[in-house]
Amino acid sequence: MAPRVFGDDDVRRLLDAETAVAAVRRALLAHHDGTLHAPPRVFAELGDGPLAFTAGELADAGLFGFRAYDMFAGAEQLVAVWERTEGTLRAVVHGAELGPRRTGAIGAVALDAAARPGPLRLGLVGAGIQAWAQLWACAAVRELADITVHARRQDRAAAFAERARAELDLPVRAVPVAADAVRDRDAVILATSSATPVIEADWIGPGTHVTALGPKTRDRHELPDGLAERASVVLTDSRAQSAAFEEPFLDPASMTELGAVLAGAAPGRSGPADITLFSSVGLAGTEVAVAAALYESEG
Amino acid sequence: MAPRVFGDDDVRRLLDAETAVAAVRRALLAHHDGTLHAPPRVFAELGDGPLAFTAGELADAGLFGFRAYDMFAGAEQLVAVWERTEGTLRAVVHGAELGPRRTGAIGAVALDAAARPGPLRLGLVGAGIQAWAQLWACAAVRELADITVHARRQDRAAAFAERARAELDLPVRAVPVAADAVRDRDAVILATSSATPVIEADWIGPGTHVTALGPKTRDRHELPDGLAERASVVLTDSRAQSAAFEEPFLDPASMTELGAVLAGAAPGRSGPADITLFSSVGLAGTEVAVAAALYESEG
Repeated sequence: MAPRVFGDDDVRRLLDAETAVAAVRRALLAHHDGTLHAPPRVFAELGDGPLAFTAGELADAGLFGFRAYDMFAGAEQLVAVWERTEGTLRAVVHGAELGPRRTGAIGAVALDAAARPGPLRLGLVGAGIQAWAQLWACAAVRELADITVHARRQDRAAAFAERARAELDLPVRAVPVAADAVRDRDAVILATSSATPVIEADWIGPGTHVTALGPKTRDRHELPDGLAERASVVLTDSRAQSAAFEEPFLDPASMTELGAVLAGAAPGRSGPADITLFSSVGLAGTEVAVAAALYESEG
Repeated sequence: MAPRVFGDDDVRRLLDAETAVAAVRRALLAHHDGTLHAPPRVFAELGDGPLAFTAGELADAGLFGFRAYDMFAGAEQLVAVWERTEGTLRAVVHGAELGPRRTGAIGAVALDAAARPGPLRLGLVGAGIQAWAQLWACAAVRELADITVHARRQDRAAAFAERARAELDLPVRAVPVAADAVRDRDAVILATSSATPVIEADWIGPGTHVTALGPKTRDRHELPDGLAERASVVLTDSRAQSAAFEEPFLDPASMTELGAVLAGAAPGRSGPADITLFSSVGLAGTEVAVAAALYESEG
């Protein structure tokens, strides 16, 4: 039997946000209960840099696979999924679309678990692929009442807002000042590659949930100092991966795993005035889970 | 652009031995001149065992990729090839056929380089997939005048001989005694998984070339003691991979790389009475080379 092959157009057309979010939620729970095997990345060094592999096995679903990507050519990524009992290669997903959407789905699960109940006023810093995928996924878990977006380049924020209105029918407005994108928000998503903080800690009001996707080492971090200290809980999708940074900006020992909160095994938000923080590291194995959901949704 | 996808039927139908041998010969030469990057295997540990990845880059051809295979489920293997400049995933080969055929092609290059000139009387020990692929590939580089095959199970040797006559039009006869398969031969191929020697050293006459595919650690080896000592040259496709065995049966320091012999940089056979020995370890990157040849042969 030949594997199903999905390119970027297929992913855009076939993967709906609800499916991606549900697949990632199951994987986060499986990670918590020990049935998701997701070892550290491994690298094979070629002439100008490594090929990286993040593997994962979803034991309960009887699936395993990996994502492969190079760190020297910027080539298409590859996600492969096998069905274990039969030993068949079921799906090959290639291109750039699956990765950000799975990261978006992780962010949506965190947002849904940690943000205050009800419709959310959402602020985005960053207007790139990752910000887009967060918005796409978060709209599947909550009503987004009012959305602000800020980017260093105003034209990109404006284009992002226009695309969101057109494609997702969401009320997004671009704001030229970063503080205006994050003040008076129920949830804030930082989706930049910035090596220096893109907001100030006191712009974040009580009750806000913050998701951070960008750099988070001591030398390079988009989060400001002082915010984690104000948060009642700092969540991550993988404490082990958080601890694998050479010099993490946030202390992994102080973090709670999102899967534990989903399972009811650890507390998340305790009240409406809490600040909650989610440090997203991209739990390994979730690419395999989303790729599996993609081919399963296709019969 | 979607990658070309090849399953076992496609490999059987589309990959001819000449193409595989030519691709492997180029890769062996590239390994010698330093343009094949083939790092050690890497492993990602899942629930019941590792996924293994052997990566390779053919710098001159502008290609890179890897082979992935599990060590716990016996699932289909996957070989993926990217074109580096464009960054496109060009080919995905899945199943069980490509691996042995590339090993067969390596064996054929060694046989052609090290055996005496002219038609060869060939002896095979082992009648499995690997033995078959060696025969398939070797027939593309030399006239095989008379072929003997021995296996522990006589019925398998008989079936092998019949299949070779039918599919490859080769004069193969099964012999019930191992010594009869290897005495008075110009070339002998050992293709077993035996942990103990399958022949005796003095069965190998002067002038014979011997290829060994099976186990070759001090504890587990299909080769007999004393044969390497009688050989005028011990070849391998990768000295580094030979040295990576924890306790190698043959001393890697005493080996000559096949690529060096092909390039004329090291001596191979020096005369008609030499015994030559080829210890095959499966140079990493050759799977990528053969997969690339497969899609290139298809336009």
